[in-house]
Amino acid sequence: MNFLTDEKLLIVGAAGMIGSNMAQTAIMMGLTPNICLYDPYAKGLEGVAEELLQCGFDGLNLTFTDDIEKAFTGAKYIVSSGGAPRKAGMTREDLLAGNCKIAEDFGKNVKQYCPDVKQIVVIFNPADITGLVTLLYSGVKPGCVTTLAGLDSTRLRNELAKYFKISPDKVENARTYGGHGEQMAVFASTVTVDGKPLTELIENGTLPKEEWEALKVRVIQGGKNIIDLRGRSSFQSPAYLSIEMIAAAMGGKPFKWPAGVYVNDDKFHNIMMAMETTITKDGATFRRVEGNAQEQAELEESYKHLCTLRDEVIALGIMPPIEKWGEYNPYLVEKTV
Amino acid sequence: MNFLTDEKLLIVGAAGMIGSNMAQTAIMMGLTPNICLYDPYAKGLEGVAEELLQCGFDGLNLTFTDDIEKAFTGAKYIVSSGGAPRKAGMTREDLLAGNCKIAEDFGKNVKQYCPDVKQIVVIFNPADITGLVTLLYSGVKPGCVTTLAGLDSTRLRNELAKYFKISPDKVENARTYGGHGEQMAVFASTVTVDGKPLTELIENGTLPKEEWEALKVRVIQGGKNIIDLRGRSSFQSPAYLSIEMIAAAMGGKPFKWPAGVYVNDDKFHNIMMAMETTITKDGATFRRVEGNAQEQAELEESYKHLCTLRDEVIALGIMPPIEKWGEYNPYLVEKTV
Repeated sequence: MNFLTDEKLLIVGAAGMIGSNMAQTAIMMGLTPNICLYDPYAKGLEGVAEELLQCGFDGLNLTFTDDIEKAFTGAKYIVSSGGAPRKAGMTREDLLAGNCKIAEDFGKNVKQYCPDVKQIVVIFNPADITGLVTLLYSGVKPGCVTTLAGLDSTRLRNELAKYFKISPDKVENARTYGGHGEQMAVFASTVTVDGKPLTELIENGTLPKEEWEALKVRVIQGGKNIIDLRGRSSFQSPAYLSIEMIAAAMGGKPFKWPAGVYVNDDKFHNIMMAMETTITKDGATFRRVEGNAQEQAELEESYKHLCTLRDEVIALGIMPPIEKWGEYNPYLVEKTV
Repeated sequence: MNFLTDEKLLIVGAAGMIGSNMAQTAIMMGLTPNICLYDPYAKGLEGVAEELLQCGFDGLNLTFTDDIEKAFTGAKYIVSSGGAPRKAGMTREDLLAGNCKIAEDFGKNVKQYCPDVKQIVVIFNPADITGLVTLLYSGVKPGCVTTLAGLDSTRLRNELAKYFKISPDKVENARTYGGHGEQMAVFASTVTVDGKPLTELIENGTLPKEEWEALKVRVIQGGKNIIDLRGRSSFQSPAYLSIEMIAAAMGGKPFKWPAGVYVNDDKFHNIMMAMETTITKDGATFRRVEGNAQEQAELEESYKHLCTLRDEVIALGIMPPIEKWGEYNPYLVEKTV
């Protein structure tokens, strides 16, 4: 089997539904032979490892441990679903405090055991915030931490494909930016549907405005819909997409969706949010997108919402005030407004 | 994306844990763009389809339906996990009657809607028997129906690798034959461990006989162990291996493990059981294996056990007596002992 790299990939939260799918996906995609599964729940972890070993893969060096030091030492790529899952009725934000504490520990483990990690993908919700907490405490460069945000864009593509009854392939450049939460900016201006700009289709009534608004709600509530349908939180799509992000960071196929990245420019400050990103072996970079006036307004709203969440975490004492971030991570210097 | 074929693959039982993993695995392996998901549980099925659509795959024509006619019509490859799952404490045989009835309906649907199917992989337990019932009622050639049996061999490889603390790659040709149930024949004579014949390692006490017997029990009870560890039936490994079987049937990578096939030769009659098989575009063929005296005896015991199960299903009225099989499937002619 050909692998993209032989560096160690650590999957945190591997006993869970998302983590176990990540592991299988990473193996099947041929990322690296050296995959380590970590979870504090040793029994379930062993069950997942057994399942994967019983697939009969060749050339695989699969290890698993509930020991943090063993797990993190030498890890060059990490993907973490290691938070508490969202239950029916909970918003992503409900998970805030508990998962931010988990992210703090996660970041500290990175700093202690694998400070030279190349890419960390954080997917436990609210991922923008847990990613930020992870970045802060890990002390790594901002481009080394990304969060799963592409799922909102794939949901947009899917909803448009269903609405227009065409193949998802014909919906191009579906994009959401900002927060991966109740308040995200669902863009129309980037999208083409069967070659036609979506904004035109909305303007000329092919997709009536109220239908578009309803469709956006379906995108934003895509996760809730999966819970309603399957009786469990979405796990296949977040696992798959996050492993695609890791693959890109290993030099594999480019990741074609937005990702959450640390943003600190002249407009958005000290925040992690979905932007137009490129993930390569050198880490993630982003560029700003300019939507129409309404989209820009929505993106700014989304940013403000994330700032509120971030400040809540600061108020909880899980993150220090922004002016002190540099003491924890030298790459995070406060941007004065 | 390159696909092995563009013929229709039908996944039966797609709303379940195994079925949904099969679907993801089939897509990731690039089997065919034309994948249809079927399950009578429409809500869960939609949830699975949504998850897969939200992975953002390109070039995929994914359909899903709870309508039997729509699902089966035109299917050239079918993999079915569409039985009731095994619960903690149940043996595979406990599932006999219920799942055989499901297999009967399954076979009849094949006969009615896709009699020119090329390969059917049956994985719901007891798979040897449900596969046989499927074969009977579908009316297809024996080489067109296989059952998942390789999981026992991968478990043997895995247990040996763990025992000898070596990479699974160094355990070669691990094999179990006969039934995929409580009574299977776990072979030692085919295996080499780090280049050394396993039988030698048992003879010279490197692997003491009682340890080997205990290891065989762990192989046979591998499924129970997963339930104990994960709190749920194994789903990743059966899904993965069964899709590997379908891939081989589509002309992809050869399947390297035994599979359950219809056997009716001078020794074993009118039965489906794990043999040394080759799965190609032309279907499955098998060859007999000659183990040592003990292994042969175990294989015969396993065969007899399967005959008992088969006869139980006949007694239940789910299958007709063997002499009448030819009326249902012209390829199944009684072998006189």
